[in-house]
Parts: sequence; structure tokens; C-alpha cells
Amino acid sequence: MEHANKDRSLVSKVMDGLVTGIVEEKYGAILPPQDVLSKEFDVSRTVMREALSMLLARDMLDVRPKIGTRIRPMSDWRMIDEDVVNWRFRAKPDPLFLRDVIEFRILIEPRASAQAAARASAADIAGIREAFEAFRAIHPGEPGYQEADELFHTRIVVASGNQFFKQMAAIIRGALSTVNPIVADRDGLWETAVNSHQRVVEAIERHDPKEAEIASLALIDFTAEEVGGHFSAEPPAHGGA
Amino acid sequence: MEHANKDRSLVSKVMDGLVTGIVEEKYGAILPPQDVLSKEFDVSRTVMREALSMLLARDMLDVRPKIGTRIRPMSDWRMIDEDVVNWRFRAKPDPLFLRDVIEFRILIEPRASAQAAARASAADIAGIREAFEAFRAIHPGEPGYQEADELFHTRIVVASGNQFFKQMAAIIRGALSTVNPIVADRDGLWETAVNSHQRVVEAIERHDPKEAEIASLALIDFTAEEVGGHFSAEPPAHGGA
Repeated sequence: MEHANKDRSLVSKVMDGLVTGIVEEKYGAILPPQDVLSKEFDVSRTVMREALSMLLARDMLDVRPKIGTRIRPMSDWRMIDEDVVNWRFRAKPDPLFLRDVIEFRILIEPRASAQAAARASAADIAGIREAFEAFRAIHPGEPGYQEADELFHTRIVVASGNQFFKQMAAIIRGALSTVNPIVADRDGLWETAVNSHQRVVEAIERHDPKEAEIASLALIDFTAEEVGGHFSAEPPAHGGA
Repeated sequence: MEHANKDRSLVSKVMDGLVTGIVEEKYGAILPPQDVLSKEFDVSRTVMREALSMLLARDMLDVRPKIGTRIRPMSDWRMIDEDVVNWRFRAKPDPLFLRDVIEFRILIEPRASAQAAARASAADIAGIREAFEAFRAIHPGEPGYQEADELFHTRIVVASGNQFFKQMAAIIRGALSTVNPIVADRDGLWETAVNSHQRVVEAIERHDPKEAEIASLALIDFTAEEVGGHFSAEPPAHGGA
């Protein structure tokens, strides 16, 4: 036990040293080989490998065959602990949790859609259209429906161009995984869902931020009403604007 | 190395098993003792201790002397990886990063302030007032200034009552740590900063969500202008609202 704790704090210290070197641009684009780093930090290769694997898991590094361990752009560094997000959304949702989830989506997605309409590249827009067409081709309950919906919402948040908005995609996916099964089993809702997704896509394609924001809010409101009816929770407050 | 990797994946498996038990409410409020859990999962006490320490670090558990290991409310489970947030904000900020930081604050804080005005308890409001009075009593550059400002903004986000907004406090604190040193060295700005903080407090005290939202936005806009001037970056787009 002593041993495990000692290793742990040593790994933390090495991680911190590596990150300090990275943010001070000491290494350039590619980290030195593991045995060089082990010597630099005066630790075993096991400890160094452990520290590197923690940074890899956080999307701070990636391993390129024949090139080495590349330092990823800082905007990719993962600020969200996806384990915790997944665990949190695995629990049975209570009405307060659902209220908070919907409020959070209302916070992020309309603004992200507006930013996407203002800033998205042609490739971003093609990706959003492609995800929408895939979503439209699958019915609720069929395999791949959930993944198609998650990809659509993720691509919009990524196309916002804001690295913090982008990080929130993991929470949006968790929200969809909770909300979709509730909405999916209602008759006749699917067509409405497709139409409201389409309205968002078209506004982004037209580079119309205001309309993209309104369409995105309408899409979430529609879901919120269905979920609210299901749980008889208080309707979510929208805050201002 | 083999050994370290094997331990790691075993620890992950045990964590996952513990969390499954927790979300299925198998354990009630207090976890069984470590040796009982070790037997249940058929792993060494070292592995079990390691798995528990990972959950402790994520605010999912806490240790109460004489009571045992308590399962914390799920709304406290930490979805933000504070290590990565701290590392990210330790790097020298570039104009694009500052733009994204300010956009993110504009996204979260005005809505959180509005929710705080709508929902905060008397104790929440007293805490916000107290943090403001502490902030007002310290000048920029004096010890404790940064901490006082961070506490003020954290308490507002917590008082929003939304568990996802609350999680974002770590990013807001990172943003303040980047932006405050830029703003703090201008003459005559401090009085303006105090006044704009005060306007937010008073709106929350009057339970006026609309005014709280506007005051919070004005507070960030004031900072954004200063930072924008400093870096000659493009002014941040505000999106809708």
C-alpha cells in the first residue's frame, strides 16, 4: 500500500514536470523518447510510461508510429472527465437531474449553433449535413439511431470553433443518451424531430446565426416538453433571452 | 511494465464495478469496509485502495472518521478534470484562447446569475454578499485579491442551483486567473470593477433575474474590452440574446 501511494505521487510529480515542459515549449512538437525522459526525470521507465499514459488518456499526446509521441494542440486537451460523465448518466435520472440537463443543453446548444452558423468552414457544414442525412435515414429503436443523433449534435458543437464549447460535447452526448429513450417511444414524434433537426442544419448552411439559435432552442424545447410530460416535473426555466 | 498495465486495467475494472453498485443503490449511503469490498471483488487490498482513491479524488466518496466511506450526492461528482484545466490555464494565453475563454464566461455567468437571482436561498445570497465585501476590501495586487474574486464568481455559479453550471466553476476560476493579471495593472479600473460586481450582487439580492443577467454580462464585457485592448484581438462575438 505504501508502495502504491508512493508510486502514485511520483507519477503525479512526473506528469506535472512533463506538462510544465510542454507549456513552456521546451520539447517542440515531439516528446523525446521514453528512455531519455526517464533519465531526465530520474525515474524508472515504468513510472514514466504510467505518467505518459495518463496524458495520452487526456488527449494531450498521441503516439505516431515511426514519428514518436506528438504533443497535441492544447485546445484538444480534455478538460471533461468522461468516466465521471458516463457514470453520472448511467444512474436512473430523477426530475431534478433532467431539469438540469435540459437547462444545460439550452445554455450550450443554441449559442453553439449560432457560432457554427457564423464560423463553420465548408467542411464543418458538409459534416453536419452528412450527420443529419444519416440521422434521418434511421428510425428510433433501430441500431445506430442514438449514435447518429450524438454525431449530429457533436459536430455542431465542434463547428462552433470555441474550444470550451467543444469540450462540452461529452455532456451533450450524455444528455441525449438519457433523453432519447424517453422521447423515442412516442408515436408520431419522429417526424417532428427530423424537421426540427433539419431547420438547424439549413440555418447553419445559410450562415444565419439568429435563425440557427432559434431553431436549436426550438429543438430542445420540443424535447423538454416531452420529457417534462413524462416525469411531470416543473417545466425548465429558460433564464433570459 | 506488464505489471503496471495489468494493475491499471484491474483498478479500472474495480472502479467500474463499484460505480455500478453505487448507481444501482446496492450499498446505501455508506460503503462496506475495504476488506469486505476486497473480498467481494476478489482483489488485493492495494488494488481496492487504489480504486477507492480514484473515486475519492473525483468527489464521489468521502471518508468520515468513525462512520466510514460515505457516497457523495451524484450532483457533486466531479465531471471536470481540474488537473487539465489548471495545466491549460498555466500556458501563455494566445488571443484565440482568450476569445474562447471570454465567450465561455459570457455563455455561463449571465445565465447562472439570472438563475441565482431566481433560486438562491437566503444562505446562498448571504455567501455572495460576504464574498463581495471581502473582494471590495482588497486592492488588486494585494494578497488574497485573486482568491476573493474567484470565491465571488464561484458562489454565484453554485447558487444557480444547476449541477452542470456548478461544475463549470473550475473553468471560470481558470479564466479569472488568466484575465485578472491583465486587467489589474490598469489605473482607475478597480473602482469600475467593484461597481460592476456590486450591481450583480444587488440584483441577486432583489431576486431580479433579468437585471442580474444584464449586470453580469456588463461585468464580463468590461473585462473583455480591457483584454481585447491588451491583445488587439478581434472583439468577441456575443452570439444572440
